[in-house]
Amino acid sequence: MRPPDPQPFGPGGSPLLTDLYQLTMGASYFATGKKEPATFSLFIRDPLHGKRNFYVAAGLDIALRSLCDLRFSDSEVAYLKSTDLFKNDFLTYLKNFRFSGDVVALSEGTLCFAHEPLLEVTAPIIEAQLVETLLINLIGFQTMIASKAARCVHAAKNRGVIDFGLRRAQGRDAGMLAARAAYLAGFGATSNVLAGKMWKIPISGTMAHSYVTAFENEEAAFTAFAKDFGSKSVFLIDTYDILEGARAAAKVANRMRGEGRQLLGVRLDSGNMVALSRKVRRILDGAGCHGVKIFASSGFDEFKIREALAQKAAIDAFGVGNKVTVSADEPYLNIVYKMVHYGTRSVRKNSPGKRTLAGKKQVFRQCNRDGLFARDIIGVRDETGDDARALLEPVMRKGEWVGERPDLEKSRSRFKTEFNLLPNQYKALERLPPEKRFPVAISASLAGQQ
Amino acid sequence: MRPPDPQPFGPGGSPLLTDLYQLTMGASYFATGKKEPATFSLFIRDPLHGKRNFYVAAGLDIALRSLCDLRFSDSEVAYLKSTDLFKNDFLTYLKNFRFSGDVVALSEGTLCFAHEPLLEVTAPIIEAQLVETLLINLIGFQTMIASKAARCVHAAKNRGVIDFGLRRAQGRDAGMLAARAAYLAGFGATSNVLAGKMWKIPISGTMAHSYVTAFENEEAAFTAFAKDFGSKSVFLIDTYDILEGARAAAKVANRMRGEGRQLLGVRLDSGNMVALSRKVRRILDGAGCHGVKIFASSGFDEFKIREALAQKAAIDAFGVGNKVTVSADEPYLNIVYKMVHYGTRSVRKNSPGKRTLAGKKQVFRQCNRDGLFARDIIGVRDETGDDARALLEPVMRKGEWVGERPDLEKSRSRFKTEFNLLPNQYKALERLPPEKRFPVAISASLAGQQ
Repeated sequence: MRPPDPQPFGPGGSPLLTDLYQLTMGASYFATGKKEPATFSLFIRDPLHGKRNFYVAAGLDIALRSLCDLRFSDSEVAYLKSTDLFKNDFLTYLKNFRFSGDVVALSEGTLCFAHEPLLEVTAPIIEAQLVETLLINLIGFQTMIASKAARCVHAAKNRGVIDFGLRRAQGRDAGMLAARAAYLAGFGATSNVLAGKMWKIPISGTMAHSYVTAFENEEAAFTAFAKDFGSKSVFLIDTYDILEGARAAAKVANRMRGEGRQLLGVRLDSGNMVALSRKVRRILDGAGCHGVKIFASSGFDEFKIREALAQKAAIDAFGVGNKVTVSADEPYLNIVYKMVHYGTRSVRKNSPGKRTLAGKKQVFRQCNRDGLFARDIIGVRDETGDDARALLEPVMRKGEWVGERPDLEKSRSRFKTEFNLLPNQYKALERLPPEKRFPVAISASLAGQQ
Repeated sequence: MRPPDPQPFGPGGSPLLTDLYQLTMGASYFATGKKEPATFSLFIRDPLHGKRNFYVAAGLDIALRSLCDLRFSDSEVAYLKSTDLFKNDFLTYLKNFRFSGDVVALSEGTLCFAHEPLLEVTAPIIEAQLVETLLINLIGFQTMIASKAARCVHAAKNRGVIDFGLRRAQGRDAGMLAARAAYLAGFGATSNVLAGKMWKIPISGTMAHSYVTAFENEEAAFTAFAKDFGSKSVFLIDTYDILEGARAAAKVANRMRGEGRQLLGVRLDSGNMVALSRKVRRILDGAGCHGVKIFASSGFDEFKIREALAQKAAIDAFGVGNKVTVSADEPYLNIVYKMVHYGTRSVRKNSPGKRTLAGKKQVFRQCNRDGLFARDIIGVRDETGDDARALLEPVMRKGEWVGERPDLEKSRSRFKTEFNLLPNQYKALERLPPEKRFPVAISASLAGQQ
C-alpha cells in the first residue's frame, strides 16, 4: 500500500463534504442492518442538448486520495450529534469509519463516451453511498475541464495553449484542478504558480496593464521588464494603442538583441485579434523581429481559436481563461453515481428519462485494422473481449491503492496517444447527431441482464 | 486587531495561488524601486450580453482572511528559486512578505451594480498587485452565486429554496462557497453538511433513489427511514412510478400519524413537475395527508421556478443544484481589478472597450421619499453625499481588520433588507435595456478627473 499523501489543499478528507442524505441514509442502513456490498457506477448521461462528442477521464488521483483520507474527526462527530438526527451507536460507527471498498476506474487521460462507467465502487452500502457526492464533484469537474481543454488543443492545431483561468475559476480548488486537467489534456503551461509547484506543470506569464501604467510610457515599462526577465519576457502591447505598443516592443526587442537577448513575445488582449495580430506581425517583421512570438488572450475558447486560425490570424500561442476554466458552454456535466448491484441482485431506477443500466460493468474498446478506435462495448464486468481492450482497471482494493499512483505526465501521454487514435470525424467541435458519434454498443450479456 | 482564524479549507494563505505575472511584475517593481502606494479597484464590467440587472456583494470575509494569511513558506520560496526567474534579494523580500494595505469594501449582502467598486485596495504596488488573482477569484465567484441565488429566492416568492449543488459544483471549494453565498442571498438551507458545520447554515436532505432500490419496495424503504427520522423524513417517490410512490408515501404517512408523527414531505425528482405535483397533491390530500409538503428538484433555476409557479405547480419547496451552483446561464462574471491610482497620479488603461474610471472612488446610494433605492452615484473617495449613504467602508487598515468580523446572519439580514428596498421593476429576471436598469451615475468630481 502506498500511504496516502496529505491532501495538498481542499477540505480533502472531511467526510462532511457530502450531502446530508448520504449520512441519514447511512444511519438508516446501519439501523436496519444493511451491510451487504453495493456496487455504484459513475457515468455521464448524454443530455438532450449535450455539447460534447467525447470526454477525457480526469480526477481519479485526487478522488482516490480523498477516499483514503476519509475520517470523521471528533469535532465532526460532535457536530453531527448536535443536529439531533443521529443515534449514538451510528456516531460511534462513524468515529471508526474507514473506506474499505474496491474501485475499478478508467485511467486518467482515457478517452471515453457517454454512458460508459468512469468508475465503479463496490463496498458495504453505507460506505459506497457516502462517497457519492465527493466522487461526482471531483471526477465530474476535472473530466469536464479536461474534455473542454482537449477541444481547445485540437482547435489550436500545433500552436500552444496556456491556462490563464485561475482568476475566473469557480473558487480556488477549481482554479487548481482546472490547471491540472487542462495540462492533462495537452495545454502547454499554466499561469497558476501553485499548480506549477504542486504538479510540476510549466508556468507561464506576461504582464498586466497595471504594470504598463505604472511607468511613464510603454517603452520604459518594457525596458524595465526586460532588464529582469530577458529572453523570457512577453510584453503586453494593448494598454494604450496596440500598434504604437508593437512599435515600442520592437524598439526594445532590437535593443535587447544588441545585448544578445531575444524577446520571447508580445501579447494582445483586446480588439479584433485577427486583423491586429497581422498588423502587429508586419510591424515586428518590418523591424527585423521575426523571432518575436505573438501571444493572444481575451475570450478564447475552441471556437474562437478555430475561427482566428481559419482567418489566418498571426497568433503563435493562445492564453485561455474564462470560457475554458468554467466550461462556459456546458458548465456542469450530467454525471451520476447510481447503484447497479446490491447484495446478490442487480438494481436500477426507472424514473422517466433517467434509466440506468443494471449490473457491474466493463468497457471494451475495439480498434480497426489501422489501429484506430472503431467502437466501444459496454459489457458485464467478467466478460472477456477477445479483440478488445478492457478499460476499467482495479485501482483500489479493500480501501488500499492497487499498483502505482497515477502520474500526471504519464496520463498526459496516455491522452495524447489515445487522441491520435480517435478518427478525426469524432473530434468535431459541433455536437454530432447520434448516428455520427463514436459508436458505443451494449454487449449481449449486459443487455440480457436488464 | 482580530487575529485571523485559520483558513477552514482551501489553499487559503498560499500566495502562490496567483498568476505568475503577479510575481514577475513584483520582482520588476522591486528591482526598479517602485514602492509607492497604488490603489486598485475591483468591479464588474457590464458585458454586452450580460444577464444580470443587479448583483449581491459576497465573499469579503473569506477574501480578507486570505489577505491576513498570506505568507510565503520556505518550500514556496524554494520553488520560486527553482524557476530561475527571481533574484535572491526579491526572494528574501518574499520571505518576509505581509500584506500591509488598506481596504475599503461593500459589506457582504449589499446590493450593487455594474461599474461600482466592490472593493478598493491601497497598498505598496507589489502587494496590491499580488492579491489581484485571489480577490477576483474569491469575490467574483461568491458575488456571482449570491446574485444568482437571489434571483431564485425572488422567483420562489415565499416558498423555500434549498441548495443541493455540492455534487455538481466546480470543485470542493466552489461547493462550500456556493452554499454560503446562497444562504446569504436567502436560501433556507443546504444539503452540504460541512457548510452547515462551518457557517451554522441549516442542513436539509431527503433520500436517494439508491436507498429506495436497496429495499424490497418503496413502502419498506419509507417505513425504515421514518423509523429513524420520523417527522424530519422526506420520501423520494419517483424511483419507479411517481403516483404509486405517492400512494406508498401516503400509506406510511398515515401509519406514522397513528403513532403521533407527521411526515415532513415527499420529493419529486423527474418528469413534468407541474402536472405531477398536482396529481401527487391530490393523492396526498385524498389520503388525508394535507400537511405533507411537496419538495421538487431536478433542473430548477429562477426561470423554471417562475414557470412552475405561474402554472400553479403544487410545490412547497425547491431543491436547486446544477444550474444555480455554477450560475449556468452566466458562469463567470466579467469582474476585474484595475489600478486607478499610483503614487500621486490617477491612472487607467484605454484598451478598446475596456476603459477604466481613474481615481479612488466611493459609491453613494440615494433613496426616494418612500425610502426605496432611487439611484447610485459613483464619486471620488473623499466626496460627501449629503442625502446619500456611502457604501464602501474601511475594512482593513495597514493589513489589520477594522471593526467586527462580518457575521453571515447579519449579512443575510442586510441583503434581505436591501432587496426589499430595491423597487420591483429592477428585479426582473430578464435583462433590462440600459435605460430601464437601476440608475448609476458618475459624480461631477469623478467625471472631472477622467
